Amino acid sequence: MADVIAKNAHLASTVLKTLTDNERSDALVKVERALKLNKDRILEANLVDMETAKKNNLSDSLIKRLDLSKNDKFDSMCQGVLDVAQLEDPLNKITLATKIDDGLNLYRLTCPVGVLLIIFESRPEVIANITALAIKSGNAAILKGGKESFNTFKALSDVINETLTKETKVPENSIQLISTRSDVSDLLSQDKYIDLVIPRGSNALVRNIKDNTKIPVLGHADGICSIYVDEFAQLDKATKILIDSKTNYPAGCNAVEKCLIDETLVKSNLDDKVVPLLKSLIEAGITLHIDPELLKLLPQEISANEKTVAATEDDFSREFLSFDLAVKAVKNVQEAILHINEHSSKHTDCIITENKENADRFLQGIDSSGVYWNCSTRFADGFRYGFGAEVGISTNKIHSRGPVGLEGLVCYYYQMRGDGHIAGDYAGAGGVRVFKHEKIDPNSVVLN
Amino acid sequence: MADVIAKNAHLASTVLKTLTDNERSDALVKVERALKLNKDRILEANLVDMETAKKNNLSDSLIKRLDLSKNDKFDSMCQGVLDVAQLEDPLNKITLATKIDDGLNLYRLTCPVGVLLIIFESRPEVIANITALAIKSGNAAILKGGKESFNTFKALSDVINETLTKETKVPENSIQLISTRSDVSDLLSQDKYIDLVIPRGSNALVRNIKDNTKIPVLGHADGICSIYVDEFAQLDKATKILIDSKTNYPAGCNAVEKCLIDETLVKSNLDDKVVPLLKSLIEAGITLHIDPELLKLLPQEISANEKTVAATEDDFSREFLSFDLAVKAVKNVQEAILHINEHSSKHTDCIITENKENADRFLQGIDSSGVYWNCSTRFADGFRYGFGAEVGISTNKIHSRGPVGLEGLVCYYYQMRGDGHIAGDYAGAGGVRVFKHEKIDPNSVVLN
Repeated sequence: MADVIAKNAHLASTVLKTLTDNERSDALVKVERALKLNKDRILEANLVDMETAKKNNLSDSLIKRLDLSKNDKFDSMCQGVLDVAQLEDPLNKITLATKIDDGLNLYRLTCPVGVLLIIFESRPEVIANITALAIKSGNAAILKGGKESFNTFKALSDVINETLTKETKVPENSIQLISTRSDVSDLLSQDKYIDLVIPRGSNALVRNIKDNTKIPVLGHADGICSIYVDEFAQLDKATKILIDSKTNYPAGCNAVEKCLIDETLVKSNLDDKVVPLLKSLIEAGITLHIDPELLKLLPQEISANEKTVAATEDDFSREFLSFDLAVKAVKNVQEAILHINEHSSKHTDCIITENKENADRFLQGIDSSGVYWNCSTRFADGFRYGFGAEVGISTNKIHSRGPVGLEGLVCYYYQMRGDGHIAGDYAGAGGVRVFKHEKIDPNSVVLN
Repeated sequence: MADVIAKNAHLASTVLKTLTDNERSDALVKVERALKLNKDRILEANLVDMETAKKNNLSDSLIKRLDLSKNDKFDSMCQGVLDVAQLEDPLNKITLATKIDDGLNLYRLTCPVGVLLIIFESRPEVIANITALAIKSGNAAILKGGKESFNTFKALSDVINETLTKETKVPENSIQLISTRSDVSDLLSQDKYIDLVIPRGSNALVRNIKDNTKIPVLGHADGICSIYVDEFAQLDKATKILIDSKTNYPAGCNAVEKCLIDETLVKSNLDDKVVPLLKSLIEAGITLHIDPELLKLLPQEISANEKTVAATEDDFSREFLSFDLAVKAVKNVQEAILHINEHSSKHTDCIITENKENADRFLQGIDSSGVYWNCSTRFADGFRYGFGAEVGISTNKIHSRGPVGLEGLVCYYYQMRGDGHIAGDYAGAGGVRVFKHEKIDPNSVVLN
């Protein structure tokens, strides 16, 4: 079964990638119209999921997340599809062009990755967003959503597939919905046909998938973000940024989990900077897990505060996802870099300083997908970056890093166009001709 | 042991990535000088390897490959290091710049991948080439070469490391040589510190590594390249290109293994095109493995030729690495695309045709890293592409594809520079400010 699903997706992908941007975008416009026309049918299915959820005593917050009828959720789901349709085409961009010899030219063009296996949580509107991103980027997708929204996913997927098949050039099987966990584990062995797995869910899910497939996985298990308060930090900026990074949405992967403070500040500005900073954090409702070395140096109003606990070593590699923050003093920017590179999850880290030299060292030395200077880690997000939409945030070191939009779902291939050219005519392979290797401005190339 | 090697490489990489292009290139210039100065010492070690090889009755061709004293091998090894030093800096290129809001800017910059584990065969000169590519691209590297050249590798590595440590800003442990297979298997579990594995060797080696690590692997197990002779192919071009692609270097991964011929040619141009083409291939010394369906239609001079055998189904998924070629008729360009996408290794495939429409379908439909029109598959090579040097050829679908030079060894990260900006001030996160998302021309940005 899994092999048929995967092979069908692969076959669909080889047609999908040959469609023009107009054909792909037009398909999304039609999907959006169909979703609106079938609103009643979809909301009926959603009601079934809601009732099952209530019967199973799921939490109120989860039930709220399942509800597609609340406020403008349905309409903004539809608008999201249109928004993606209107983004710039990520495909067939020429990113390199070289005249290899007279009549022999090399071009590098962007192309889809191929087949994506996307596993996501229970928010039903996500399926429309992912479908839009996949089709716009020319990738076939196999989708598995949280079981709590199964009926809604099924209704949405039916409408999407009926529309694609009847009204558009997008081939059948471009978007396939699967329903069971065992389907997922079978698909994870289909590395011949599936090119990229994108899990969007709990850390446990992501880890489990990474451990059980040879297919590249795009995503992040942890979001352990740090903020380093440098010797030359301005107190007001540090306070404001730390509070926002921690409290704006503590469950987000871009929330800060660790605060490193320069030792010089502790020695020379304890009362006028360090203590006021920590006090403000406590007042903002944050529980501070303070390294014992630093804790010793702090006055009672901090050290004996009910919001203060002594940090364990583990606290510095931990994603709290709550109003908790690990705090530690470090010798200087170099030690901050080493500490972060060793303990962070390569998501997003920030320096707060007015000193350009220290900022530059930090920006260059940190090994994460996002390195910030004087702004909140909460900006690490595809919408905030201006990507229009994101399929997730990657902490990988290859291919895509950080918030992944359309550009993160494409790769490239090389086209070579000749007129009977053979390698044996050239020096190094038996001949005497020499390669010209003249760079061509990719923007000047028209492949017609 | 493996964890120490890997962690030291990681620590070195975080310093190496902060060096300027001048510092990295200058280090290579000094390495080149040191190699020349220590030529005698290196060739002495090489002699030990050569004598051991003779004592162990290794094949003449292998012994020839080990020999670093032959012709200008040593000098061109040195020249290769200088050539890489002079290539354009692949790092810190700004590839995206966006004004997120007043005083808040987002930049995407190229950066090294981090730590590379490179496993290669016995040609001793390769270590200089790989060292040059790693340092120029700001990556730390752990190297394991074939055991037959161990003494030469050791001498080269000692000279390289003495020079780097004493005379350059490249930190210690940037280039580490390891010597045993068990070291390799231990290192394959160090996914916390090693970012990319690049195996350059036999298919068995590559497969074995892919099966035994969670670290991304850049490389290719097979090079199964195909050439499709379209209905509108010119006979002379098809003949010339097929013979070059097969015979120029049959052991190369870019040699052709499969020839698909359009059925219309078989039906309408059997005597004036198909038979002469196959005859020329036979005359060039190629053994044809012809699909039984096609074989039935061919005259005795081909079908009963001693260089002709009936193909098995397996022959169409096989890398012969010899003067053998699988041949089959397909209905049209669409069937050729399907056959290649199903059976090729996504390396390099070619269409021979004078028909632009068919060429376009092929160029767009084939799912390989190289898709060619009217030229030999043997051009799939970093030097021939004009990359200066290559670390290998990738058949992956993500990150790097095809011949991988410096650009394939970098990724990117996002810098965000603000002045106390917090997410909570913006719509969607509790505030009212709206993002500007104004595109900035990356070429106009000076980050000073």
